[in-house]
Amino acid sequence: MTVLRSHVQGSWFTPSVEGRPLHDAVTGEEIARISSDGVDFAGALEYGRTVGGPALRALTFHQRAALLKALGQHLREHREELYAVSAQTGATLGDSKFDVDGGIGVLLAYASKAKRELPNDTVYVDGAVEPLGRGGTFLGQHVCTPLHGVAVQVNAFNFPVWGPLEKFAPAFLAGVPSIVKPASPTAFLTAKLTELVVGSGLLPDGAWQFVAGSVGDLFDHLTGQDLVSFTGSASTAQTLRTHPAIVRNSVRFSAEADSLNLSALGPDAVPGTDEFDLFVKGLVAEMTVKAGQKCTAIRRAFVPTEHVDAVVEAASARLAEVTVGHPGADGVRMGALASLEQREEVRRSVKALDDAGRIVFGDPDQVDVVGADADRGAFVSPILLVGDPERSEPHEVEAFGPVSTILPYTSTEQLIDFAARGQGSLAGSIVTADTAWAREVVLGVAPWHGRLLVLNARDAKESTGHGSPMPQLVHGGPGRAGGGEEMGGIRGVLHHMQRTAIQGDPDTLAAITGRWVTGAQRHESDVHPFRKHLEKLRPGDTLVAGPRVVTQEDVEHFAEFTGDTFYAHMDAEAAAANPLFGERVAHGYLIVSLAAGLFVDPDPGPVLANFGVDDLRFLTPVKFGDALTVTLTCKQLTPRDSAGYGEVRWDADVTRQDGESVARYDVLTLVAKQES
Amino acid sequence: MTVLRSHVQGSWFTPSVEGRPLHDAVTGEEIARISSDGVDFAGALEYGRTVGGPALRALTFHQRAALLKALGQHLREHREELYAVSAQTGATLGDSKFDVDGGIGVLLAYASKAKRELPNDTVYVDGAVEPLGRGGTFLGQHVCTPLHGVAVQVNAFNFPVWGPLEKFAPAFLAGVPSIVKPASPTAFLTAKLTELVVGSGLLPDGAWQFVAGSVGDLFDHLTGQDLVSFTGSASTAQTLRTHPAIVRNSVRFSAEADSLNLSALGPDAVPGTDEFDLFVKGLVAEMTVKAGQKCTAIRRAFVPTEHVDAVVEAASARLAEVTVGHPGADGVRMGALASLEQREEVRRSVKALDDAGRIVFGDPDQVDVVGADADRGAFVSPILLVGDPERSEPHEVEAFGPVSTILPYTSTEQLIDFAARGQGSLAGSIVTADTAWAREVVLGVAPWHGRLLVLNARDAKESTGHGSPMPQLVHGGPGRAGGGEEMGGIRGVLHHMQRTAIQGDPDTLAAITGRWVTGAQRHESDVHPFRKHLEKLRPGDTLVAGPRVVTQEDVEHFAEFTGDTFYAHMDAEAAAANPLFGERVAHGYLIVSLAAGLFVDPDPGPVLANFGVDDLRFLTPVKFGDALTVTLTCKQLTPRDSAGYGEVRWDADVTRQDGESVARYDVLTLVAKQES
Repeated sequence: MTVLRSHVQGSWFTPSVEGRPLHDAVTGEEIARISSDGVDFAGALEYGRTVGGPALRALTFHQRAALLKALGQHLREHREELYAVSAQTGATLGDSKFDVDGGIGVLLAYASKAKRELPNDTVYVDGAVEPLGRGGTFLGQHVCTPLHGVAVQVNAFNFPVWGPLEKFAPAFLAGVPSIVKPASPTAFLTAKLTELVVGSGLLPDGAWQFVAGSVGDLFDHLTGQDLVSFTGSASTAQTLRTHPAIVRNSVRFSAEADSLNLSALGPDAVPGTDEFDLFVKGLVAEMTVKAGQKCTAIRRAFVPTEHVDAVVEAASARLAEVTVGHPGADGVRMGALASLEQREEVRRSVKALDDAGRIVFGDPDQVDVVGADADRGAFVSPILLVGDPERSEPHEVEAFGPVSTILPYTSTEQLIDFAARGQGSLAGSIVTADTAWAREVVLGVAPWHGRLLVLNARDAKESTGHGSPMPQLVHGGPGRAGGGEEMGGIRGVLHHMQRTAIQGDPDTLAAITGRWVTGAQRHESDVHPFRKHLEKLRPGDTLVAGPRVVTQEDVEHFAEFTGDTFYAHMDAEAAAANPLFGERVAHGYLIVSLAAGLFVDPDPGPVLANFGVDDLRFLTPVKFGDALTVTLTCKQLTPRDSAGYGEVRWDADVTRQDGESVARYDVLTLVAKQES
Repeated sequence: MTVLRSHVQGSWFTPSVEGRPLHDAVTGEEIARISSDGVDFAGALEYGRTVGGPALRALTFHQRAALLKALGQHLREHREELYAVSAQTGATLGDSKFDVDGGIGVLLAYASKAKRELPNDTVYVDGAVEPLGRGGTFLGQHVCTPLHGVAVQVNAFNFPVWGPLEKFAPAFLAGVPSIVKPASPTAFLTAKLTELVVGSGLLPDGAWQFVAGSVGDLFDHLTGQDLVSFTGSASTAQTLRTHPAIVRNSVRFSAEADSLNLSALGPDAVPGTDEFDLFVKGLVAEMTVKAGQKCTAIRRAFVPTEHVDAVVEAASARLAEVTVGHPGADGVRMGALASLEQREEVRRSVKALDDAGRIVFGDPDQVDVVGADADRGAFVSPILLVGDPERSEPHEVEAFGPVSTILPYTSTEQLIDFAARGQGSLAGSIVTADTAWAREVVLGVAPWHGRLLVLNARDAKESTGHGSPMPQLVHGGPGRAGGGEEMGGIRGVLHHMQRTAIQGDPDTLAAITGRWVTGAQRHESDVHPFRKHLEKLRPGDTLVAGPRVVTQEDVEHFAEFTGDTFYAHMDAEAAAANPLFGERVAHGYLIVSLAAGLFVDPDPGPVLANFGVDDLRFLTPVKFGDALTVTLTCKQLTPRDSAGYGEVRWDADVTRQDGESVARYDVLTLVAKQES
């Protein structure tokens, strides 16, 4: 029997021992063996730190994003190969797509987000400049830099593709290499994924290492620059979290553990409404997709007492139509659990839940199976219970399979109280069309949740559903759910970086961040900065233009021309009564229009367009006779690797005759690269 | 002897036992006793959760900020009382101000930041709306809500006032009550602080509880909604971090531990330069302020090999002028350590450092003392060493007193390597006028640092120094420094809140966040929204105005009037060659000027001013003949509790005849409250 290979220190490693057997979840047949015996874990970490890390840190965020996109496209081209292996985990084609396409989607979403929201640079500038003194010579600025360690992933068996990829994407973008360690039962699929990743030749050496089997002594070698992201059971999370090396070195440890996720049917969503149907449909989907083996699946279905029977009836009718069996067989909607051990675990949990309620659909010990042997494959029937919400079991016992418990509630306050008894969840859903009720419940249960979905007829068509973590949104929950946070867009990238507060003078901050900041040196020259191509522009390049006197005639003319006859500009008496002005003042839009008139260079040149303005503030009123000067300073350059231009952000400071700033803003332009 | 009282569950608690003695650090006299025997810790936590938490959560961020400001002012009025008690900790008046005024400064800085950067609301909206579907019916939005538990502070002995206040301010702003537990040796000063806080009557009941003495069984009762912020030794941090209740419930645990902070003298900062003097002055200040008992003090002073002798000479000359003794005695610049135990600890550490180098100033066993008994008080001489940077001791042994080690380096690369051997620090400083060298070193060592100061002649006058954490900046460091993060402006507030991703339709998101979002219902009425006072305005109030056709004459007139004759507006041939336009287009500033002409209501009314514009993007070029319509929608209201007006943010969407958006931006106005 083939033993799975690890991929560490730049090459494939075959263990010398036979290893433990892995079984097809459907047929029970042995399909591979697994062991990490002989893997040099200290060496793998050091390889990541000394080979993978430096290679990644040499790339800009945009360059990493381009590789991530290419990797996503490569995997998409090969996804059929992943589906084929995925079937052996008990997954239907739909389940496989959830795992495989979901994981690829994370890569592509992160690649796209990084290009839009991260600079084409290696340093991330976090938040605003903080003035630390009145004179402007001493400033603060937070920056984020990649940790110099390795992101160690310890994944769960239920998402052998999505799990590694959703952890890998933000780490890679941050510039931190990964060691991927899947759960053994489905590690053969992650091994296939690794073959594709390594085979793509896209990633820098050391960026993705893969361990099939146990982590051996890997944790003993962790330092404060490494990170661990764990998905799995709460008890394993606790063991890993207290590992001496993690505790001693304050290793960043993020855990996503199973949780007792809720779905609540709103009082408005009575039988016959769209929302009632959406609730039932969502419940059944969450029970059966991946045979309920999702950390985010609905375990507690809260229903107004008077509608419990209706929900039981509707859900049972739908569940009765779910055919269980071989993922490849016709009409099968639910496959097998990942292993026979998992089935035993589910049966034990159902027993405990049954003691605190009653089963209203299904039999944990009996299931009709299509196209497979019900005893050799890890099949189990969907099980729906009605529980007593005053008992602890429904809030604490998680049957990690196609199992949910309906719990009656009688008031919103009670629902919020019951929700908290789950002690922290990854995801919850509230099914209601009533926005006020949604607000009350969402804000009431939010402290216990990482994600909350409000589902109704208005968003159902586009909704991604209760159980789907999204790359744009944080995934993780407090308390029982592990207290971790993954993804969440750029937040997930920053989790892999060290935030450092830098204090210094403006010139030093500008040098460190690569961005001009107020107070840093300005460079004026004979060449108008609008005549410079992107490669020639430097932060600090400056144009000073003016003065332009603003007259009463200008203001009246502008008012008439634009129609903006607001009293502060036109009515001396009313303007005098205004607490901020005291007399007639110029339009803010006139000020910025005149400033543009002063700073533009009219002839065709590298500046292609002014595509926006940020953070415009009118600081001092402009009165008739004031003379305006504008100082335009190149602040930040964002070259686009795949375009003939880039974005240039300019600081615009409009001052009056006494030097006082009257308006301050960022002007955003597109500037062409040198013609080649 | 008086035994210190705790303040829990709304009243003062006097333990029935005698307690352990606390000593005046200067005279050695017993000044109080301490014990938490009999404190109901479970009850204190529950009191915070059920009394303090709800009271705080009922307030908006601005209301909490107003209380924080009032508390800061109250403490400032009583600071002399705190200084008096502080002297008994061995602190000079300067040291006391560092602790007391520093702590008050954090309260005031947080109050001010909260009013500027947080909404006058109870929900914090985190980041942008995330579109989750193409149709715009399904959106994501992160919100932060206060945890429903208690922020438990476990503080260090060296900052009995600043420590509690810097942890309290962000927790309070978040809406989370605190339990303040100081280190015993200086707990009598925190007890005095608590008397002032409680005596002020400003805070809601349960917002500040105080435990004098050990934490008893408090940790056993922690839940996933509580948090722990610890400052102290790494070994205690490890013990607390692995407490079963913390591990089981994924309790947020933030640690600030001592660290081997560095200061590096730049190669440009040769003897005779301002920077050389700044380096030496900073080193001596960090050694002697608070007798070197600062987690942020300089322990490793990196100096180019060729300047080691010069630094030793200059630093020794300054150290020789530091008079040690009774904080109240004339001319005394350095007081006592906090306790005789601390002195023994420092002597042990100096011994280890001496083995890996040599003492060049001071004698750990001998010090001349003014106005006090050198044996009874915890006095120690400043000790400067020169160490071997290849040995581990200088990077690992922290003498928590007036002790620093000079370490020679020969290249920038080597300096960065040595820096990392500290395995994570709270703060570092780089003394150089060379911005390129500053960039190289800062980015090289940033992954190991929470804060880095670049000091030179340009910022020295305003610099707050190496050792001062600032409320605007994060305080904390990776690895050995504990891995925590405190303060950092609003970041510190968010550490006490749960971030939750909300998914839903626009109307539901608008209801939950209290802000209008794209796609949510708009309310048009006969009343122009500019005629509504602040109290009458609602998110969603909308005005639609237009159309206004933009003609070639308009564009040419605007160009001539403003001087903005950019080719894309004026030169048909050049505009046609522009990859984005293809023909002449209207000025962006003309579009927003005309839009204002369409949406303003000219007569005097509640709208006082347009004070700014945010996030303006020109989405589609406007060509001659296009007809513009503007839709102005009230998006967010920020009433100012202490002013007769508030800020109103409007969504402006300028569309052309086919409905396509040509410009999108936020208009910021000040709107008066109803005249009363």
